[in-house]
Amino acid sequence: MQMSNAVTMRTNESLLQDYQRVRRDSVNICAPLETEDYGIQTSPEISPPKWHLAHTSWFFEAFLLNKEQADYRAFHPGYDYLFNSYYESVGTPFPRPKRGLLSRPTVTEILAYRDHVDSAMIDLIRAQSDNASIQFLVSLGLQHEQQHQELMYTDIKNIFAFNPLRPAYKQLPEPPTIESEDYHWLAVKGGLNHIGHGDDTFAYDNEFPRHRVLLEDVWLAHRPVNNREYLEFMQDGGYEDTRLWLSDGWTHINKHGWNSPLYWEQDTNGKWWHMTLSGMRPVDMNAPVTHVSFYEAHAYASWAGMRLPSEAEWEVAATQYSPDIKGNFRESGYLQPCSPEGNALFGDVWEWTQSPYAPYPGFKPLAGSIGEYNGKFMCNQMVLRGGSCVSPQNHLRHSYRNFFYPHERWQFTGIRLAKDNV
Amino acid sequence: MQMSNAVTMRTNESLLQDYQRVRRDSVNICAPLETEDYGIQTSPEISPPKWHLAHTSWFFEAFLLNKEQADYRAFHPGYDYLFNSYYESVGTPFPRPKRGLLSRPTVTEILAYRDHVDSAMIDLIRAQSDNASIQFLVSLGLQHEQQHQELMYTDIKNIFAFNPLRPAYKQLPEPPTIESEDYHWLAVKGGLNHIGHGDDTFAYDNEFPRHRVLLEDVWLAHRPVNNREYLEFMQDGGYEDTRLWLSDGWTHINKHGWNSPLYWEQDTNGKWWHMTLSGMRPVDMNAPVTHVSFYEAHAYASWAGMRLPSEAEWEVAATQYSPDIKGNFRESGYLQPCSPEGNALFGDVWEWTQSPYAPYPGFKPLAGSIGEYNGKFMCNQMVLRGGSCVSPQNHLRHSYRNFFYPHERWQFTGIRLAKDNV
Amino acid sequence: MQMSNAVTMRTNESLLQDYQRVRRDSVNICAPLETEDYGIQTSPEISPPKWHLAHTSWFFEAFLLNKEQADYRAFHPGYDYLFNSYYESVGTPFPRPKRGLLSRPTVTEILAYRDHVDSAMIDLIRAQSDNASIQFLVSLGLQHEQQHQELMYTDIKNIFAFNPLRPAYKQLPEPPTIESEDYHWLAVKGGLNHIGHGDDTFAYDNEFPRHRVLLEDVWLAHRPVNNREYLEFMQDGGYEDTRLWLSDGWTHINKHGWNSPLYWEQDTNGKWWHMTLSGMRPVDMNAPVTHVSFYEAHAYASWAGMRLPSEAEWEVAATQYSPDIKGNFRESGYLQPCSPEGNALFGDVWEWTQSPYAPYPGFKPLAGSIGEYNGKFMCNQMVLRGGSCVSPQNHLRHSYRNFFYPHERWQFTGIRLAKDNV
Amino acid sequence: MQMSNAVTMRTNESLLQDYQRVRRDSVNICAPLETEDYGIQTSPEISPPKWHLAHTSWFFEAFLLNKEQADYRAFHPGYDYLFNSYYESVGTPFPRPKRGLLSRPTVTEILAYRDHVDSAMIDLIRAQSDNASIQFLVSLGLQHEQQHQELMYTDIKNIFAFNPLRPAYKQLPEPPTIESEDYHWLAVKGGLNHIGHGDDTFAYDNEFPRHRVLLEDVWLAHRPVNNREYLEFMQDGGYEDTRLWLSDGWTHINKHGWNSPLYWEQDTNGKWWHMTLSGMRPVDMNAPVTHVSFYEAHAYASWAGMRLPSEAEWEVAATQYSPDIKGNFRESGYLQPCSPEGNALFGDVWEWTQSPYAPYPGFKPLAGSIGEYNGKFMCNQMVLRGGSCVSPQNHLRHSYRNFFYPHERWQFTGIRLAKDNV
Repeated sequence: MQMSNAVTMRTNESLLQDYQRVRRDSVNICAPLETEDYGIQTSPEISPPKWHLAHTSWFFEAFLLNKEQADYRAFHPGYDYLFNSYYESVGTPFPRPKRGLLSRPTVTEILAYRDHVDSAMIDLIRAQSDNASIQFLVSLGLQHEQQHQELMYTDIKNIFAFNPLRPAYKQLPEPPTIESEDYHWLAVKGGLNHIGHGDDTFAYDNEFPRHRVLLEDVWLAHRPVNNREYLEFMQDGGYEDTRLWLSDGWTHINKHGWNSPLYWEQDTNGKWWHMTLSGMRPVDMNAPVTHVSFYEAHAYASWAGMRLPSEAEWEVAATQYSPDIKGNFRESGYLQPCSPEGNALFGDVWEWTQSPYAPYPGFKPLAGSIGEYNGKFMCNQMVLRGGSCVSPQNHLRHSYRNFFYPHERWQFTGIRLAKDNV
Repeated sequence: MQMSNAVTMRTNESLLQDYQRVRRDSVNICAPLETEDYGIQTSPEISPPKWHLAHTSWFFEAFLLNKEQADYRAFHPGYDYLFNSYYESVGTPFPRPKRGLLSRPTVTEILAYRDHVDSAMIDLIRAQSDNASIQFLVSLGLQHEQQHQELMYTDIKNIFAFNPLRPAYKQLPEPPTIESEDYHWLAVKGGLNHIGHGDDTFAYDNEFPRHRVLLEDVWLAHRPVNNREYLEFMQDGGYEDTRLWLSDGWTHINKHGWNSPLYWEQDTNGKWWHMTLSGMRPVDMNAPVTHVSFYEAHAYASWAGMRLPSEAEWEVAATQYSPDIKGNFRESGYLQPCSPEGNALFGDVWEWTQSPYAPYPGFKPLAGSIGEYNGKFMCNQMVLRGGSCVSPQNHLRHSYRNFFYPHERWQFTGIRLAKDNV
Repeated sequence: MQMSNAVTMRTNESLLQDYQRVRRDSVNICAPLETEDYGIQTSPEISPPKWHLAHTSWFFEAFLLNKEQADYRAFHPGYDYLFNSYYESVGTPFPRPKRGLLSRPTVTEILAYRDHVDSAMIDLIRAQSDNASIQFLVSLGLQHEQQHQELMYTDIKNIFAFNPLRPAYKQLPEPPTIESEDYHWLAVKGGLNHIGHGDDTFAYDNEFPRHRVLLEDVWLAHRPVNNREYLEFMQDGGYEDTRLWLSDGWTHINKHGWNSPLYWEQDTNGKWWHMTLSGMRPVDMNAPVTHVSFYEAHAYASWAGMRLPSEAEWEVAATQYSPDIKGNFRESGYLQPCSPEGNALFGDVWEWTQSPYAPYPGFKPLAGSIGEYNGKFMCNQMVLRGGSCVSPQNHLRHSYRNFFYPHERWQFTGIRLAKDNV
Repeated sequence: MQMSNAVTMRTNESLLQDYQRVRRDSVNICAPLETEDYGIQTSPEISPPKWHLAHTSWFFEAFLLNKEQADYRAFHPGYDYLFNSYYESVGTPFPRPKRGLLSRPTVTEILAYRDHVDSAMIDLIRAQSDNASIQFLVSLGLQHEQQHQELMYTDIKNIFAFNPLRPAYKQLPEPPTIESEDYHWLAVKGGLNHIGHGDDTFAYDNEFPRHRVLLEDVWLAHRPVNNREYLEFMQDGGYEDTRLWLSDGWTHINKHGWNSPLYWEQDTNGKWWHMTLSGMRPVDMNAPVTHVSFYEAHAYASWAGMRLPSEAEWEVAATQYSPDIKGNFRESGYLQPCSPEGNALFGDVWEWTQSPYAPYPGFKPLAGSIGEYNGKFMCNQMVLRGGSCVSPQNHLRHSYRNFFYPHERWQFTGIRLAKDNV
């Protein structure tokens, strides 16, 4: 199994510290919530915050404790059914669209469930410090939990944006406003390049194997499209011009009446506001546009006479121009994209690529139920790259592949332009 | 306006006491709930308990305080939109199927809202003790709140029945089990009779005017159909025999796969259990069958070679055989139908009649928005009579008309048989 | 069985003549159609004309030939499944919404099927002239076919109205335009009256038994509401005023965007046109409004400060004021409501009553599968009275009860006003 | 414009002959139909045969006659709206799912429309023989019509398969049954290869530009998976084993209850039959499996421990192993896949590849409305290669890219296996 074999062994202590930090982070993200907020599911792809808290614990229970701790006793026999997300080979999960209809277990009970799992996990990590497979599964569980932490932010935002009272998650620092520079164009030289994860640190199975790709010369914009530029597209009739849209996109925006990014609202004076985790705020014209679908990103790029980069182009450019993973991540505390500095390919917004999410040549999913983690989603979705303002910095990699359906836009998604010649 | 004019004036103090008792009851009904339980909406016709708590307060705000208290300040400007149920002439209500998606206001905020309204209402009642119209609207608001209290019980039951953990609302006393007697037949003599509300106590507009009806001789069973009898219908293939069913009923049961009352589950030994407010319990074969739709009640009666009574037949029989309103109501504390004693036409289960809900001859709805209370629902629904195990006894009247769609069965609904000759 | 027993025996020859005339009428109604028109189903409640032609033949096959003709050989073994409409006890019918997806059998094959059935039926009628039960079933089959003839006209109209080319069924004579008179009010005296079918001629089971009803004094308008009057309601904001509407009606018109009768279209000059069986025509302001649902009829009556009559009021008035069944029926050839003369309660438009379709006291459906004819529809529908411009005159009776769902309006339905005092 | 510029000029006469032959083919394909069959649409993605006949004519009218024939008079002003398929920039098309609800224009009228267009087109071709752009558009129109001819076969099959009478389109010759050979493995050498259309004959814009691709060594099976092999997958529980399926595929097969290819039916003896254009026939175990979705093809390949080829791998293999385009096409007259001989990569079934349909590097759609032909569908669909038993042989190319949604299976689609090492 490529992932587990590849991982460098770590010390007992460092893994324990990671475990405790990541697990604590999930609870801390929810700290500003009222009890009532933990249970809401505004649409099928959104999960209630308390479900995230429970499911991330179930993951450790299902893939580690039940198998590796001989005397482990499940916290509650019903949770296996309730908190399995989609591991069909583990058993039929509770129907996803109905997660918000469960008042029980309560938040208190779920926090007790977390404690129960944590206590057993700490024992397990201490006892099995030299077991590579366990180390790998612990790392996988923590990476998994970090992914859910990002979802917790975007799901909470959706829950508050749905509510006519538009509650704020938390009063957050205002990100700085810096006038956007004109695009610089980051040149990527054509020819044979390598992409995919290449060293013995942790990576998901979908980043393997590292392999050669053939590129043509391409230029990527040094920053994402900003709100001012996107508003020009809107004002130029972008949402009404069928020629700019993919067929499925045109059907989708007309069926749902979309004519701006998600969460944008225009007041009676024509001024644009949008929902943020601090509540309603004026749209910062210099900040990267966000909460756009792939369809909108594609239409914008067509309107601009350019295109979206492929994921290979993006990865090669990122390796060249952003060797360090710097940018506006969760750690900045803004939890909102802001005017970027430098040639950052990371942070602020997940950037839609033109690449359908597909297996790399020679891809093999992990063995067993854990193999359902990534591979089975390799159809109908598009790859996004670079991480967002709610991603944990240490979760990201140059080879990291995120993926969503082309109509989805409740993540912090944005647009980076590419062009074939300058 | 027939309702308000008709009502005998009451003392300031007695009205205040009623007000405080009814308002307290709503909060008490919710006392066994966890905070999380207050927000759940399992289907569009169910409302979250906290919505009931808020909406019943909004009723007093919208129809009394905003109009009669010159200096009244609304608790929150957004609540008028959130907690209007269906009074379209007051403004477009928040979409009903989405009530469960609102984490805010919180339970604590809603209780504060109740306190705010109560304090203003108490001032108003004290100040305007001699105003008949205000007395009437206060009474209407309290009757309205009692209706919602009944819904709170049935909605809570639905919320807990949906949850795979099947939580109990509360550990309740077990109702006594008494072997059902064979039917006695209560004779109702044909000819001209009167139905409708006839004195100057409070009644809803739909109970007016009292008027003559022409009946033929009819006999009503002295007790509702019990679970044993209903199970015989099931075992005799009742749900598979198209000839017993109304066309819309046949379509409905097949579309939804119904083959037993709501909340019934058969264990692997063939034993029947059902969800109660105390959690899962064995079905008591002597207790009245409940949670059946009109379609099922009608099919059962066809199978039994009889029919359902009309609402006029029921009212005349109740006046004759149950002059006092006695039976198993909320006050018994069972919150579950049980083996009845005597000729009770009241209590245990709301009894489906064969009467579509329609205006009485000469019916006039109340003037203004309050006129939306009843009249606009006089289409596509069926009348039920008699009150249930979760109705407050003092809410019921011989002339009381409840109404639900023929497919609905989350109320405590049941079956009383009638026949045209003996 | 009340219907069959009640029917006076007829001569062999007169029944045969009726049979041949009614069967020929169905084919003649379709004569102006192109082959392609016979197969279209524009919505689930519409049936393709060729389906009507086949189903009316199946009726004779299923209820007479298969049972009474020992040596009868079905024309095709698959037709029993394809052309059963809703007689569930005969077998599961082919799904109604998919009738338009069957290119086979072809029109030619269906006409051959009709000939096959007719030939066997003529033999049967000749051979069994003295069998009361067979006479009854033949009459029932012919009445059934006449009902379908009315549906053929309204379904054909719907099929052509759906087509953007708006084809005409046939060039029909223009009905005369006569200035509508102001309403006269036809007084109906309160007290005990009889309704229901009372003599030994044919009637449907739902018209039995004749029984006493108690009426209050009431006055019915001498003519239906005309298009001018209905347009005033529209122009007065009738479709926007929630207070005028039943709750289910308000939901329905908003969901479907209704703001005029079915088939009305306003041109850019503000002039109203509507689809007729002759194609698009200007709306005749003196003709009765038609293609309105019960919800619209009810809202109109509320707006006018009046109400719809009950079916009992209508029947008593019709018996008194229209002892003969005269009016604008199919035989006039207009196939469109026109300005009526005199106190006609019959013809032009089916008049919505305020009466839900329910069994008369003591109603018993016919025995066997034929009992599915009427009784199982006695829920959720409203009674209409009087016949329309596409009803065959000899099909109607004073006691005739038509019924449709309150939202349906593709029949020639209209409005007659009633009031409780003058 | 790459397509038009690239095309070698042809003689007037050869283009005219092509035009007349292709146009005649469409009418001939429909010749066995009854008039009623021309109008049926069994689901939104199916079109009625007469719609195909009209739409292919509209294509010439919209993109050639209206623009290039100064005095051209449209046959009917309403047809532009009715017969536009999806060229949104030409105007809003008539809603696709309702094409089957139009009885008019009749088949006769549509044939007259075809004659009208043909007569004008013949004049145009004669007059403008030296105009490259017109030559290109004529060729495009004919290729377009050939695509619709393939759809006509598969739509007609669907229409007849839906009908419980299972009519045969035509009595066709039985294809020969030849015992399938074990797989030979066709080796494709890794490294840089070229794919895409490379010479100056006609090709669609999506086949351009010819470009380099990087392949790894791969082996393709010499023949598609046959019915016997697919049945083994079914009997081994393939449809019940979640681990074999893509997530969206698993959802889809469960939602729709799929457990075999489309059109398969098992008789009471366990024998498998399937619908063909000759009616119901026993499944030939040696013939390629067909009417499987991408999801099923993917699951089968997973079960077999292999994978589907990419479109680049397929094209390189086809160029190497099937330099001539030979196989079982429409011209064989079988209209059904049959036991193939040799290393045919063409014919019998369209082979699902693992490649999402995406633009080639440097792809530019055609200018103007004709640019909607291909590019806007490059999302959510999968590429298929090789042509089928109902493709015209001269329509295919090594570079030809067909594309359908991964759940679609009413085309003659099948499975070719690939593996990464031998």
